[in-house]
Parts: sequence; C-alpha cells; structure tokens
Amino acid sequence: MKNALYAQSGGVTAVINSTASGIIQAAKKHPEIGTVFAARNGIIGALKEELINTDLMSDDEVMGLNHTPSGAFGSCRYKLKGIDENREQYERLIEVFKAHNIGYFFYNGGGDSQDTAHKVSQISQEMGFPITCIGVPKTVDNDLPFTDNCPGFGSVAKYVALSTLEASLDVASMCESSTKVFILEVMGRHAGWIAAASALAQDRSHGSPHIILFPEVTFDEDKFLTKVDETVKQNGYCVVVASEGAKYPNGQFLAEAGSQDAFGHAQLGGVAPMLAGLIKEKLGYKYHWAVADYLQRAARHISSQTDVDHAYALGEAAVNLAVEGHNAVMPYIVRDNSNPYQWHIETVSLDKVANVERMLPAEYISKDGFGVTEACIEYLQPLIAGEAYPPYENGLPLYIKPKFILAEKKLKDEFVI
Amino acid sequence: MKNALYAQSGGVTAVINSTASGIIQAAKKHPEIGTVFAARNGIIGALKEELINTDLMSDDEVMGLNHTPSGAFGSCRYKLKGIDENREQYERLIEVFKAHNIGYFFYNGGGDSQDTAHKVSQISQEMGFPITCIGVPKTVDNDLPFTDNCPGFGSVAKYVALSTLEASLDVASMCESSTKVFILEVMGRHAGWIAAASALAQDRSHGSPHIILFPEVTFDEDKFLTKVDETVKQNGYCVVVASEGAKYPNGQFLAEAGSQDAFGHAQLGGVAPMLAGLIKEKLGYKYHWAVADYLQRAARHISSQTDVDHAYALGEAAVNLAVEGHNAVMPYIVRDNSNPYQWHIETVSLDKVANVERMLPAEYISKDGFGVTEACIEYLQPLIAGEAYPPYENGLPLYIKPKFILAEKKLKDEFVI
Repeated sequence: MKNALYAQSGGVTAVINSTASGIIQAAKKHPEIGTVFAARNGIIGALKEELINTDLMSDDEVMGLNHTPSGAFGSCRYKLKGIDENREQYERLIEVFKAHNIGYFFYNGGGDSQDTAHKVSQISQEMGFPITCIGVPKTVDNDLPFTDNCPGFGSVAKYVALSTLEASLDVASMCESSTKVFILEVMGRHAGWIAAASALAQDRSHGSPHIILFPEVTFDEDKFLTKVDETVKQNGYCVVVASEGAKYPNGQFLAEAGSQDAFGHAQLGGVAPMLAGLIKEKLGYKYHWAVADYLQRAARHISSQTDVDHAYALGEAAVNLAVEGHNAVMPYIVRDNSNPYQWHIETVSLDKVANVERMLPAEYISKDGFGVTEACIEYLQPLIAGEAYPPYENGLPLYIKPKFILAEKKLKDEFVI
Repeated sequence: MKNALYAQSGGVTAVINSTASGIIQAAKKHPEIGTVFAARNGIIGALKEELINTDLMSDDEVMGLNHTPSGAFGSCRYKLKGIDENREQYERLIEVFKAHNIGYFFYNGGGDSQDTAHKVSQISQEMGFPITCIGVPKTVDNDLPFTDNCPGFGSVAKYVALSTLEASLDVASMCESSTKVFILEVMGRHAGWIAAASALAQDRSHGSPHIILFPEVTFDEDKFLTKVDETVKQNGYCVVVASEGAKYPNGQFLAEAGSQDAFGHAQLGGVAPMLAGLIKEKLGYKYHWAVADYLQRAARHISSQTDVDHAYALGEAAVNLAVEGHNAVMPYIVRDNSNPYQWHIETVSLDKVANVERMLPAEYISKDGFGVTEACIEYLQPLIAGEAYPPYENGLPLYIKPKFILAEKKLKDEFVI
C-alpha cells in the first residue's frame, strides 16, 4: 500500500476543488491507496515537505470541496525547470515521496503541470523509486490539447455569457440618454475561448455583444471604431467583449498602451479602459467598462453543472487509472455528441500534452473577426449547461476552508525555493 | 375610471422590474384603474408620448418582469428642470396625461424622480387636471432618506459580498507565489453603502476584505499604504474594496474620468487601476484589480430574495395608496427587527424625500476608517438574505423582453427633448 500526493497548480478555477474531491473520495475506495496528502500551495509545498493529511478532513469537508472555488490547499505559479538545469529539485521531490511512502502523484494543472508530471515520472524511474504520475487537466483558458474542454472553462464561460447578457440589458435600457458603449474585459492572454463564450448571450440579448476582440485576431483600430460607430447608429448602443490578450499588429498588448491618471500615477493594465478612452476620443460616445478579473474564474456561485461534473469525474478517473497501473497519462474529456451533450473519458500520454496550446480555431471565428460562427456556439453551448448552486447560509455560499493539518516533516533539510 | 402611467428613472437595478410587475399586477385588481401604460425610456417617453400598453403583455411577461434585471421599458438620465425654468415640459406632461386619460402617475426612481413626481402633482392641480402621483423608491446607492433600504441595493450588496468572498479565496490560494494585493472597485459615488456590503464576506473569508475605501472617509495615501503593507506582511495578501467615489482631501475623486453625465455628475471609473498603480510604485507588490461596473447592478442571477420582495411589495403598495386617495407620497420600508428580519411599509410625503441623500452614518464606519462596525453588519445582513434565482434554459436565465407596442399618439405636436 502506497500513499498519494495531490497538488494544484497555476491559476485556480471555480471547480478545481471538485477534482480534489473526486480524487480523495475515489482513493478511499481503493485499498491500494493509503493516505491522500495534498501539497500546501502546490508543488512548492511538495518541495518544502508541507503535506496536508486529507484523512483528517471530515466527510462534510471533502464533500464541501465540490462546491468551493479557488484552490482549497493552495496553488502556485512555480514551474520546475528542465531536469538538466535543475536536477536537484526533482531529486528533492523524490526524497519527499520516499519519506512519506508516496507511490501516486496526481498533478492538477495546465500544460506546464502536465510537463512536470511527465518529468517526475521519468526521473523517479531513473532513481529507482518509481512513482505513478497522473496529470489532471485544469485551466480556465481552455487551451489544452486533446480534451474537448478544460475543467474550469465551462464555469467561466457561463459567468461571462451571463454577465454579458445582464450588462447588455442594462445598457439597452439606458442608451437613449446615457451610456452608448459598454466594454467588458475578460481573461485569455493567448487564446480567445473565454471571450468567445460571451457570444452565447447573443440569442437572449438581441445580438449583444456586437463586437468580440480575440487574441487570435490582430486589432485593427479603424475597423473597430467603424464597427462601434455603425452599431451605435443602427442599434442605439454597442457592447464590446475584449480578451485581455487583444494585440496590436506589432504584437504589443492593447493593455500595455500605458496611460497616466490625473495625479501622474501610471494606469497599469486594462484593455477595457484603453478601448473606452479610444472610443471617447475618436467617437465621443459616453462609455462604461468593467474588468471581471478574478471574479470570473472564482464565480462558483454560477458554475456550470457540466463543468462540475467533468472536474469531479476526471479526479475519479485519475485514481482509477493509477490503480489500474497506468502511468504518465492524463485523462481527458471526449465529446460524443453536442445536442444532447454526451461525453466520456479517454487517456493520453503526458509527453503528447505538454506545452501544446490550443487556440480558438479559424473556423470558430466569424468572417469579420468580431464574432463567432455557429460551429463555435454549438461547441460552447453544452459547456455552460446546468446550474450547480452551492448551499447558502445568511445570504452567502457555505464555501469550506479545510484545516491545514500538516504531516510531520521527516526530512532533516529545509528546502528553500 | 382613469388609466395609469408607470415610468422608470435613472440607473436601473436588478429588481426595478419587480416593482413594475407589482404595479401592473396590483392595478389589475382595482377597477378604478384602466390600462397601465409604461413610458418608453422613462420620462422622455412620457414627454414624447411613447406609451407602452402593458395590457398587451401576456401574463407570463408580466410575471417574468419579476425575475428580469434592468429597465424592461427603458429608463433615462433626464431631470426635469424647475417649474419656473421650464414650465413647458410640465405642461406637455399634463397634455399627454389628458390625451390618454391618465389619472395615476407612478414614478420609480431615486431622489430626483421623487422631486419630479412631487412637481407633477403640484402643477397638475394648478392646471385643473389633478394627477395622483406616487413615487416608488429605487436606487442601488441606498441613499434615499426614510426608507430602511432602497430596492436594488440588497441585490448589489449580495453581489459585492459574494464577489469579494470568491475573489478573496482565489487570492488566498495563490498569494505565496503570485498576486499579493487584489482591488475590487464598486459603485457608490457619494455614499459608501455598496462598498460597506463587502464586509459581509469577512466572516467567511477569514477577515477579507482587509481595507474598504468609502466616499465618506477622506483618502489618506500614507495610512492606506501602511495598512496594505502590514496586511500583506501579516496575512500573505490584502484585499481592498474601493468605492468609485473615494476622494482625496481636496475633494477630488481618486479616479476622475473628466466627463460629466446629464445631471452634471462627474463620470467615474478607474479607482482600482489607480490604486494598483500606487501600490506597485510604492510597495512593489504584484496586484490584480477588477471593476464590477454594470455587472453589479444588473446581476439578477444572484439577487437577494429580501430585495425582490421589497421591490414587488412597494409596487403593490403604490397602487393601493393611489386607489385609497393618497397623493404626492412615497411608500417606504420600515424595519421592525433585524434578526429575524421583520419589516412593513409606511408612507412619507414626497416633498420631504426630494434631494436628500443619506450617507453611511459615522457609527457604521470603524474607527480606523477602513471597515465597518457590528451595527453596520447587523443592518446589512438581512438585506442580502435569500436567493431569488431566475428560471434557466440552456445555461442562461430566461429574462424577458416585452414587446414594445406603443399606444397610438393623440397629440399633434412632436415633442423634441
């Protein structure tokens, strides 16, 4: 019997804890797996030997993970370097694994994490202490290859579509005498999936958003301003959804076009305020803008049921794969049918997943570059289906915060990151 | 039998249509009231004789208003001038009322609208065509006098508390290796009620938000930076919620967009990026920021049940008051008890309501000026209670959009705004 280590990596999501819940609950069913430890703050906690004993969590806490956003055990932005560059870190990991009798490593993250899981698997073999490494996909950016979608994305997509719908109704009702242009900035540095999801609102909001800016489509200022102006003149108002990663033809992010406020402080970041300023200057329309930032990826209160189901099922599948003797693989979602949505889980070798980004394909972007195609809507629709409401008390969700009871350290050395 | 005119005014809310639903449904029960017309785009539609016949709405549409955000009939930012300055506009209104046999005027808005309703009542008497004028309170700013709270505020309060909670969990889980300071900008030009509501998250989020900036408390840059720094050092991260109306000692807003709306108010937006820049420059911490803007006041998907109940009940009460012969009054919410929350409706004369703003009282603001007191929490708590979920289809709420079937115009003149 071997113990397991679970770690969260990279930007957190509304449903990454559902995967944790799936892993912990599935592991309890397999006598091959002893204790599931969760690394505190992701791989940093593994290196520092800060391991949370999930056996000490109550059943309510383990179940509660399934409706709690963010990384309950902590996550991190920390990429292990290549083995040649920093073999010491990998060796340290294996030492920690040995010290706590860990034979299973479940790494829940994006492309970088799949790469790390792959390397850990390789080096553990070389060092004669083989670890079964399973990568579990997660990223709001929806940019991993193979999988139909990435857990975390469906919930952000739902939040963005819903927020676009609600804000569009607001602007529509006020535009005769007030705001004419509303801009919502959403996440997506390299891939436009999240921005694309706003198009799901169009059916309910009479065509809004009218303009979507993707990282995949170079920003053309004249074309953009012409479209804004035409839309306001035809429609009374214009709603724009902009990816944070929208770029100028020279590759510079729109958000990097720095400006200063009235007091000389640099106004850092912000595609939305930058576009608002442009519209005000060139067209003179009254505007409002919003930047959803963390609100979108943490919005567990409006997570999609599909997304929660995927996240939990992939956690369960990871445990089952490990117990069945698979190694260095990632379970992923395969779509069988869009309407009704049917899906199952398959498995891919980690070396094929690592460091491949999946952009919004050209056939999902409309001809003018400001919207999406029917094929894209058909892809997105099932991912926002169902409302997975958390329980509430006194008007706020009962999100859980597990106690961090760390396992006693067994290694003499302190590891400094 | 006289007809009624209902008009929405000023910034819309998640529940203003619940008041509309309450008025339309209550009016159907009183034979004294014929058709309820809704002015298209608020008082502008009344002046232009653009009247929507709500008799032509289906029962489903009238019921659907109760779960649909924004102003279903359109609202406006348009303040009638004083009678001496622009008697013509008031006379035009009375002409429209006469032409459509309107004897009841329900004006759903903030302080300015209560003032207008009061003036219409006065001038209609002078002109020998007396109109029963009832003001119905509405504003997310929660700054009307007399009423325990303003419909629209409870839902924004819930959205802000919830968003603060969710974003706080996100930052907490990433702070060891990533973002240390998160800033959420919320509405509240003059009054800090909305920002104060974020404090409801503190109980669930282990003390976050750590700093709240109110318009009522002059911004002290050194004190603010010291508190941010201390919080990050003690806690690992710091969450700040800032009112858009936060001000420098000289009275200038931290974020001055430079433009003005129709009422001569400065158009705000951008406190959050300004504070982020300041923190980056002076403390060097990695930051993220969000600006909720219209998302917060349109978020019907997470409206509070208390707020929806208030909004609907005030609509009903307005009709009952009118039929009972009251004139130039506003129904408002009186709190009988906080826990359990008990309330009833009373009535105040419109001349007492007009142009009085209710700020966050000193006893609701904590000693250091960066938080709220227990008394404030006790006040806010019941206002966010209950989840009034709208119905969903295909992952998005079934908000309704009534058909605008305008009554035939009876006046010869076109009125130009």
